[in-house]
Amino acid sequence: MAEINIALIGYKFMGKGHSNAFRQVRRFFPRQLEPRMKVICGRDSAGVEAAARQFGWEEYDTDWRRVVERRDIDVVDIATPGNLHAEMAIAAARAGKHIICEKPLANSLSDAKAMLAAAEKAGVRHMIMHNYRKIPAVAFAKKLVEDGKIGTPYHYHGAYLQDWIMDPNFPLVWRLEKKFAGSGALGDIGAHAIDFARLLNGEFDSVVSQMTTFIKERPRVGTGAGSWGAKGSKGKGKVTVDDDSNFLARFKNSSAGVFESSRFCGGRRNYNTFQVYGSKGSLAFNLERMNELEFYDRTDKQADQAFKTIMVTESVHPYVGAWWPPGHIIGYEHTFVHAVADFLTALEKDTLPSPNFKDGVANQAVLDAVERSAQSRKWEKVKT
Amino acid sequence: MAEINIALIGYKFMGKGHSNAFRQVRRFFPRQLEPRMKVICGRDSAGVEAAARQFGWEEYDTDWRRVVERRDIDVVDIATPGNLHAEMAIAAARAGKHIICEKPLANSLSDAKAMLAAAEKAGVRHMIMHNYRKIPAVAFAKKLVEDGKIGTPYHYHGAYLQDWIMDPNFPLVWRLEKKFAGSGALGDIGAHAIDFARLLNGEFDSVVSQMTTFIKERPRVGTGAGSWGAKGSKGKGKVTVDDDSNFLARFKNSSAGVFESSRFCGGRRNYNTFQVYGSKGSLAFNLERMNELEFYDRTDKQADQAFKTIMVTESVHPYVGAWWPPGHIIGYEHTFVHAVADFLTALEKDTLPSPNFKDGVANQAVLDAVERSAQSRKWEKVKT
Amino acid sequence: MAEINIALIGYKFMGKGHSNAFRQVRRFFPRQLEPRMKVICGRDSAGVEAAARQFGWEEYDTDWRRVVERRDIDVVDIATPGNLHAEMAIAAARAGKHIICEKPLANSLSDAKAMLAAAEKAGVRHMIMHNYRKIPAVAFAKKLVEDGKIGTPYHYHGAYLQDWIMDPNFPLVWRLEKKFAGSGALGDIGAHAIDFARLLNGEFDSVVSQMTTFIKERPRVGTGAGSWGAKGSKGKGKVTVDDDSNFLARFKNSSAGVFESSRFCGGRRNYNTFQVYGSKGSLAFNLERMNELEFYDRTDKQADQAFKTIMVTESVHPYVGAWWPPGHIIGYEHTFVHAVADFLTALEKDTLPSPNFKDGVANQAVLDAVERSAQSRKWEKVKT
Amino acid sequence: MAEINIALIGYKFMGKGHSNAFRQVRRFFPRQLEPRMKVICGRDSAGVEAAARQFGWEEYDTDWRRVVERRDIDVVDIATPGNLHAEMAIAAARAGKHIICEKPLANSLSDAKAMLAAAEKAGVRHMIMHNYRKIPAVAFAKKLVEDGKIGTPYHYHGAYLQDWIMDPNFPLVWRLEKKFAGSGALGDIGAHAIDFARLLNGEFDSVVSQMTTFIKERPRVGTGAGSWGAKGSKGKGKVTVDDDSNFLARFKNSSAGVFESSRFCGGRRNYNTFQVYGSKGSLAFNLERMNELEFYDRTDKQADQAFKTIMVTESVHPYVGAWWPPGHIIGYEHTFVHAVADFLTALEKDTLPSPNFKDGVANQAVLDAVERSAQSRKWEKVKT
Repeated sequence: MAEINIALIGYKFMGKGHSNAFRQVRRFFPRQLEPRMKVICGRDSAGVEAAARQFGWEEYDTDWRRVVERRDIDVVDIATPGNLHAEMAIAAARAGKHIICEKPLANSLSDAKAMLAAAEKAGVRHMIMHNYRKIPAVAFAKKLVEDGKIGTPYHYHGAYLQDWIMDPNFPLVWRLEKKFAGSGALGDIGAHAIDFARLLNGEFDSVVSQMTTFIKERPRVGTGAGSWGAKGSKGKGKVTVDDDSNFLARFKNSSAGVFESSRFCGGRRNYNTFQVYGSKGSLAFNLERMNELEFYDRTDKQADQAFKTIMVTESVHPYVGAWWPPGHIIGYEHTFVHAVADFLTALEKDTLPSPNFKDGVANQAVLDAVERSAQSRKWEKVKT
Repeated sequence: MAEINIALIGYKFMGKGHSNAFRQVRRFFPRQLEPRMKVICGRDSAGVEAAARQFGWEEYDTDWRRVVERRDIDVVDIATPGNLHAEMAIAAARAGKHIICEKPLANSLSDAKAMLAAAEKAGVRHMIMHNYRKIPAVAFAKKLVEDGKIGTPYHYHGAYLQDWIMDPNFPLVWRLEKKFAGSGALGDIGAHAIDFARLLNGEFDSVVSQMTTFIKERPRVGTGAGSWGAKGSKGKGKVTVDDDSNFLARFKNSSAGVFESSRFCGGRRNYNTFQVYGSKGSLAFNLERMNELEFYDRTDKQADQAFKTIMVTESVHPYVGAWWPPGHIIGYEHTFVHAVADFLTALEKDTLPSPNFKDGVANQAVLDAVERSAQSRKWEKVKT
Repeated sequence: MAEINIALIGYKFMGKGHSNAFRQVRRFFPRQLEPRMKVICGRDSAGVEAAARQFGWEEYDTDWRRVVERRDIDVVDIATPGNLHAEMAIAAARAGKHIICEKPLANSLSDAKAMLAAAEKAGVRHMIMHNYRKIPAVAFAKKLVEDGKIGTPYHYHGAYLQDWIMDPNFPLVWRLEKKFAGSGALGDIGAHAIDFARLLNGEFDSVVSQMTTFIKERPRVGTGAGSWGAKGSKGKGKVTVDDDSNFLARFKNSSAGVFESSRFCGGRRNYNTFQVYGSKGSLAFNLERMNELEFYDRTDKQADQAFKTIMVTESVHPYVGAWWPPGHIIGYEHTFVHAVADFLTALEKDTLPSPNFKDGVANQAVLDAVERSAQSRKWEKVKT
Repeated sequence: MAEINIALIGYKFMGKGHSNAFRQVRRFFPRQLEPRMKVICGRDSAGVEAAARQFGWEEYDTDWRRVVERRDIDVVDIATPGNLHAEMAIAAARAGKHIICEKPLANSLSDAKAMLAAAEKAGVRHMIMHNYRKIPAVAFAKKLVEDGKIGTPYHYHGAYLQDWIMDPNFPLVWRLEKKFAGSGALGDIGAHAIDFARLLNGEFDSVVSQMTTFIKERPRVGTGAGSWGAKGSKGKGKVTVDDDSNFLARFKNSSAGVFESSRFCGGRRNYNTFQVYGSKGSLAFNLERMNELEFYDRTDKQADQAFKTIMVTESVHPYVGAWWPPGHIIGYEHTFVHAVADFLTALEKDTLPSPNFKDGVANQAVLDAVERSAQSRKWEKVKT
């Protein structure tokens, strides 16, 4: 069975999650190609060296361009802040590498399109890391939709709410600066909500939005926040992204959509939720209880029509059989393992991974329309 | 203890609920004025006679104008479709009667304002039946807000979802015709969501909306639906109201609002919910579990910060002491009893009941802006 | 439509609940016989007079024997502490009155049997007020059992947990004295758990138990607690009943049972719960959310086998149609209304009400075996 | 940093979980000693070879005695059916190896005591794999108990319910034969419930029990079930263990306990739950939602006393900091990683791991009393 040599750029939160996925994938999906953890890359030499050792990479490097050019590398996995995605991905494509890229695909729609074009021109395989699609409960939700269990779609609600920056003294990390992150709650977590909607309810036609920044200045961090963030000086700096972004949507299938994303909802730790309502059934999901899916079947007998809370932990459910016996739940990082397993399968079968840069572009087009609407204060078409 | 003579116009769903409230109020709030159930009024003679007998009214009548003019009547309670509210309320005010009126106050903002003006000119007491404010859990939520437990408001979500007209063969009842009902999901249930928001988060500045009708034609009902609805002919008729209405809001306090109202959300029987997020705490409520309130206190110790599910069934909670020992839940109709108790207290103390026609006008102004935005496809100011 | 003259003995918590039921029943179940609220009876003249006025009784009396003998009384409803049930019920039976009696039927099995014998000898109708059977969700659970949806019963768990006497300074009310109450948690709330089990899982064969009193002395209440309780002197008095009683059971159908009843479970306000597990399905219920029933159907497709949370608030569910439109919940006191409606129907149709004194005796036989086992420290047969 | 050489006996479900723990521990707890995955051992050569390759062991072997005697092995981890624990653990102790052993410690109390004695005599470190203690929510529950948040214990309920053998055609695997498994639901899952109770509520004084086998015969599996199970012939064989075991308990601290364990509770996939009730607070937990802990604090203000649902996913919670940012849940296998991390820490610091064989003996003593009571049909003392 062939080996695939991986280079990972980024070694903090996402780097840790992706590393674990490469390390674990064949322990649970043993028939996959073998991903060889060749090199991890970051700007800070000491930091990336420690990461390489802890996460199990053979080598480390501080120059991503050198890594991308290496002959022995088959796959470049980009887990950096969004402002670097386009340059890295395009370089990787030109070097003929298959690419995995964190979401959102880029900090602008034009960058995202350029990335897709570069990958397609180079004929390389590409995946966007919308890992939450790979949750068994979400993949099972998709199956129920495909099986017609929801029927004609009417109403979709997506909300991704967190509370980790509510303290006004929480520092100005890179995720709070537009030049690094592109946007705030919208691109970081709203992008996940958009991805769920595209997966389960189809493409967006138009949106109208509101974006709010509640805490307008925050303490600078002197040492740089994020492996690729700028060194900040002391004092306070301006928050240049949204704390809270909401939008209404019209889908191409005529159904209505309502979306919330916020980092200021106290008590919501990681509340990535959707509710799908159609003529035949309804679905509800909450990432905080990611092993469960709620399903309402309007074709049940009237007296016992009700939401079921399905434990999506049975061998008949997607991905579950690889792990533990029925009823034993999995956690956050398993979603990356599933994504990598699917990516490796696509490489082996020479098919396009899913989701890929096309999904990234489509997602970015929604983010773009949301940002335009926040300026224009009217409905904006999603331009794809 | 003085008696107050009541006339009730309307004898179907709301008539039944209001009747029960007058009948029960002094059994549980014995120190109130005595409401005497004098006369119930409706168009259909046989129907209103049966209602009078079943619900315990002394008399019945089919002519609301005659009833409103009666010397012996102190209070006129209007529980009819919205198109009749203004005419009835203004007549009642001119006749010097105190008024209770179902929500929404009217089918247009101008009608609502005329009603308030008439009541104020006549110097009569007036209440709008936003009964859900009188749920102990909601009144307790209000107290937590007033006590500063939520802090600076950031994000508000209100959703009132139902599923009772999803069947395309459900008939064209009066609630589905604009000339009777004013609007559909928006005015019927969205108005409740707006009232909760005004109670807990303050006044609206502006909104942007979408309104959708999924089922555009429905079977006519030959016999008239609703006591004041027109007799319909056979065949299909046009649905002239919204099935589903959503809007974003900016509140005057700068917080962001997201609202959903829909009659097409399968499995949601009576899902009138809110979540309030502020700098110090969060609240969540669902009418389907109306004896509970979820409360998150950011001032708790970090390790045990979490949503509590408070059973609002203790003697220290609003209204609860009048009913049963701690832990014994109450139901839907109790909310009307509380509203009537508060109304009678206001009469006795010669104060303005709460909520009253001013609240009705403020609510209507939001409905009005939502409807304008659905046309203009941009943000609209709430004109008060 | 005929009138039935009612006498009620007891005017506190249960008196209030029963009164409401007689007053409300024909407002919602209009085809029933008319119960006329003739006389309410209690020891304390001022108290019972106030209760008569507040609850709507025509007369009051302080001598229950006189009331029971009245020619014009058709039904005697006994809502007093358990030590008085037998004497009152037997007197009522001898006087030819139909009887409703609160649970537990008596303070001893022999008393309970004497009551049943007296009622049968006199040929009067009798009901035991196991009102929780009349919850729509519970009646619907019974229907699912009867329809074979649970299959062969395997495992039953009943728990009724409360927390209202956890404070050691809570006084020595009559419910804490054996001579008045018979037992503590066991007879007061455990009896409800036993009744659910008999309804849903059939008769008990044998039990083994433990009974515990955590707080052995409490402050005496100088004024008497409970309308029929003794006037206590000051100082502390001995708690002579159980605070917490648990037992294992073997049912006649061979299934296994586990029962908990406790007044010392903090946070459990009125946690009367059951779980029924059989070869085909499972059920779960909690009185604190009494409008819901959880149902698991093992015959569903494997991928979506899961507990449903049914809102038992639809017109197709037992009792619900009499109240409000779908999705509008009911509360505690509605259970008494349903019980009285069923009682009146039985009178009208000249059938035996359900549940009746036979159920009371069967329940008492389980209580009796539980108490014997707590002494013998081994399994005891339920003697019926 | 030193390496510790590990030998693992058993390569199926538990073998997979333990292997993952050794492989992952230093990726997330990088300051631990390095466990070197030296050799995995099982009877079936092909099976164990495949397991070695998939799970990442350097070597495999089919002779556990040879493995245990290897000079280069520091730790023997026993993940086999219970009938083999004693022989293996005693041999390992005699060979001077530190020992990890799956629960229950043995199939009899005398075997368990012999194992402890052998380990103590040899002066080796020993751990029993009660991995569920290592769930952050459970470890946090323990901390709340130690901090006095529960107060005087009154009532404890533990239930571990599953449904995986409800189908009568489910085969006669080793877990259903007494000679291999010792007992059924009791030892397999009831032992976990007992461990939680000992952790959170202290030692048992006495118990009374019932044990039931619902399906008395099952199809034999021709190929042997479990790596150490006997080859079964065709046809049906007798189920020699309990399907369902319940018991009441008296704890040494005088509180009352109620325990359920069953494999016949439809819809309960892995329902390992406890509720702890004391004078100051209450706790509730369910393994199916293992990232959450419910906590009720009686010292809260009366109006907002309620169960909180704590997401035990914050950096301040036990073990959580090693994994992901707040709000990102972990899964089943993480519990083994934590256990191994604690074991390695104990080795490094030369302290006794927790839980260890003493806990195994104490747990076995409860199992022993439960089994005796099922025979004697009366209360039995736990003999320690």
